[in-house]
Amino acid sequence: AEAGDDAALRKLLDVLHPADIADLIEQLGGEDRQRLLSVMGDGLDGEILSEMEEGLREEVIGSLDPGQLEAALGDLESDDVVEIIEDLEPERQAEVLEALDAEDRAAVEAALSYPEDSAGRLMQREVAAVPEHWTVGRAIDWLRKSENLPEQFYHLILTDPRMHPVGYVTLGRVLGARRDVRLDTLREDSFRVIPVTQDVEDVAYAFNQYHLISAPVADGDGRLVGVITIDDAIRVLDEENEEDLLLLAGVGDESLNDRTWAITRQRFPWLAVNLVTAILASAVIAQFEGVIAALTALAVLMPIVASMGGNAGTQSMTVAVRAIATKDLTGANAWRVLRREVAAGLLNGLAFAVIVGIVGLLWFGSPMLGVVIGAAMIINLVVAGFAGLLIPLALEKVGIDPALASGAFVTTVTDVVGFFAFLGLAAVVLL
Amino acid sequence: AEAGDDAALRKLLDVLHPADIADLIEQLGGEDRQRLLSVMGDGLDGEILSEMEEGLREEVIGSLDPGQLEAALGDLESDDVVEIIEDLEPERQAEVLEALDAEDRAAVEAALSYPEDSAGRLMQREVAAVPEHWTVGRAIDWLRKSENLPEQFYHLILTDPRMHPVGYVTLGRVLGARRDVRLDTLREDSFRVIPVTQDVEDVAYAFNQYHLISAPVADGDGRLVGVITIDDAIRVLDEENEEDLLLLAGVGDESLNDRTWAITRQRFPWLAVNLVTAILASAVIAQFEGVIAALTALAVLMPIVASMGGNAGTQSMTVAVRAIATKDLTGANAWRVLRREVAAGLLNGLAFAVIVGIVGLLWFGSPMLGVVIGAAMIINLVVAGFAGLLIPLALEKVGIDPALASGAFVTTVTDVVGFFAFLGLAAVVLL
Repeated sequence: AEAGDDAALRKLLDVLHPADIADLIEQLGGEDRQRLLSVMGDGLDGEILSEMEEGLREEVIGSLDPGQLEAALGDLESDDVVEIIEDLEPERQAEVLEALDAEDRAAVEAALSYPEDSAGRLMQREVAAVPEHWTVGRAIDWLRKSENLPEQFYHLILTDPRMHPVGYVTLGRVLGARRDVRLDTLREDSFRVIPVTQDVEDVAYAFNQYHLISAPVADGDGRLVGVITIDDAIRVLDEENEEDLLLLAGVGDESLNDRTWAITRQRFPWLAVNLVTAILASAVIAQFEGVIAALTALAVLMPIVASMGGNAGTQSMTVAVRAIATKDLTGANAWRVLRREVAAGLLNGLAFAVIVGIVGLLWFGSPMLGVVIGAAMIINLVVAGFAGLLIPLALEKVGIDPALASGAFVTTVTDVVGFFAFLGLAAVVLL
Repeated sequence: AEAGDDAALRKLLDVLHPADIADLIEQLGGEDRQRLLSVMGDGLDGEILSEMEEGLREEVIGSLDPGQLEAALGDLESDDVVEIIEDLEPERQAEVLEALDAEDRAAVEAALSYPEDSAGRLMQREVAAVPEHWTVGRAIDWLRKSENLPEQFYHLILTDPRMHPVGYVTLGRVLGARRDVRLDTLREDSFRVIPVTQDVEDVAYAFNQYHLISAPVADGDGRLVGVITIDDAIRVLDEENEEDLLLLAGVGDESLNDRTWAITRQRFPWLAVNLVTAILASAVIAQFEGVIAALTALAVLMPIVASMGGNAGTQSMTVAVRAIATKDLTGANAWRVLRREVAAGLLNGLAFAVIVGIVGLLWFGSPMLGVVIGAAMIINLVVAGFAGLLIPLALEKVGIDPALASGAFVTTVTDVVGFFAFLGLAAVVLL
């Protein structure tokens, strides 16, 4: 029965897309996962490895014997192999390189010679390029004879005699034109060449901003060395978005498949930074112990001011971090956006000052307590607007990822200012 | 001199990509923006409108006279016009529709007849489709004669006699094959038809998951009605990512170009919800006023426990919200992930219990105070792990966007539990 189950399972896997199989493997627990992998056994498709989330991939590759690994990687494009290999431990890297045939190995090693996170790592070396002076007919004849075309391509890249990319033509236009038409009369207006050392984030930005489907990559001398396609750019964009989202919440590069111990260690430093900021806030409160002892209502109400400031600051900060990432927030409009953030902080500060003032009054029957908490609220929300914008901008300026560090600074500011304004005003006005 | 400046400016704008011009307009303040728009005047490219951020677009369209609007929209594809029009006020919509020629208007009105956020709104109606039994040569001859091909296309869609899409061939393969080869022998393995009523989020997911470049759209009877291309899908993905990021921070659909009053009103409800949760936390503290009066050190230390819980909860929650969005977190692995989150909460709780215990001891010289804050820390970080995972999952289950509402619930739980555990234990142990 087991063998029958296995056959049925294999049949099921046959109709699934590799990306779905990878997701399935990710969702299974330890034993089921082993079972599934052993059923696939020798037939493990390289595409599945390629779709798998990093941590798990390393585990699966570790469980394959050299023959299986060779079979799996054999039918992948070189850029996919590079993506798999660059995350592996050095010794495992050597193993994988050995599993490749000589030609693929040379291609992968060439890619790995470019800096990490550069266009050179992202590109594929198989390109469909022809001289710019060719006609449609000549290009079609050449394509029909070519053996080493990329698996997917959407443009013919036009090159000059020095192999510099000088334009491209969409395949749709090639197909729609008569055989005697020169290719360079069909070229697209928007054409961008990616330098091979360009950071992948900038590559992804260009694809997104200019709606590129593919773009040629050129070396330092301007010579065509490869092509980057939209699927690679999307992967980078996706990873970046995920990274920003997680960083803003104080989570690093973790995945659902990481083990308890990994995520515990991962999250510890962020919590430790938060502890420091919380202790700073406590130190502010400690300055006012006498005031609190005299009026315990202050202890009851003080977290409200800090919490509202923290929230307002996080709102401003998130908008700022996102706008910096999309290059919408720059020196040119920072001043205008700052005035807006501070004004919005003031307006919401006024609104919530009235609301919490009334809450304070009704709860503890003291009009002056209401005035104090209202005033502290206004101060803290205005400060939140300032801090929420200026802290990410300042971090960006000094070369620190704003998504990484803004949160801790912003909440430190709003906690400290919140407690200090509320308790300080209370000390002056109420005692 | 003004006229000379204008000419120079126009020349500069000529070499910029519409997406960059749109960004430029977004970054300029009121007067400069008006100046730039008036310089472009009649020559305003529809692409620029299409690249512009919604709020600003509405403003710019409002400033154009019907002739200018007609000129701008004339050279856009129907799906781009739909994207522009669907965000406008109804009366402005009517204006724009009138500015279109009869054929475009019919296409746009047809698209608008599909539900908002459905594939029907996203697709373009121009398709490159041929019968499946055709040969490469026949397809090429047809393409050379066709007048109404899409501006960009990457596949030939194969249809059966009832106009159902049954497969597709990449243009690269068409170009690489001999004229007498039948197209259906070249078809791609992975082929997905998008139902015209499918939600755009699911469309974007399919493009991302299966690395699609384009996909045919079919109506309820399975007939080909349009095609969606990767650039549309990326736009949706991007908007979704941005939305999740902003929602998690308590910011709705706002942009850098919104005015002060707009963002003030936008953010108010989120702050109001936060105020309610903060008052709930205060109500917990109020139960322990007597304890605090007897020992003001508790007021100094209590924000630490709440803040650490809030942070840990936000970490778990963000990972969960992201994993739900990418369909990585499902019923199949929720239990496994929950155990991991709670275990990580316990481990970090133990670590920080020791640290804050020592802080409490050194600061206030009371070993029991150290024990109390340590114990409260463990409790709150474990609860944070539970809440951070279960709240997003529960919201998803009842059909509420987890990114929208998780934050308020999670911090309410960690605030309430944090204050209650710390002050409650203190009341029992220390008094």
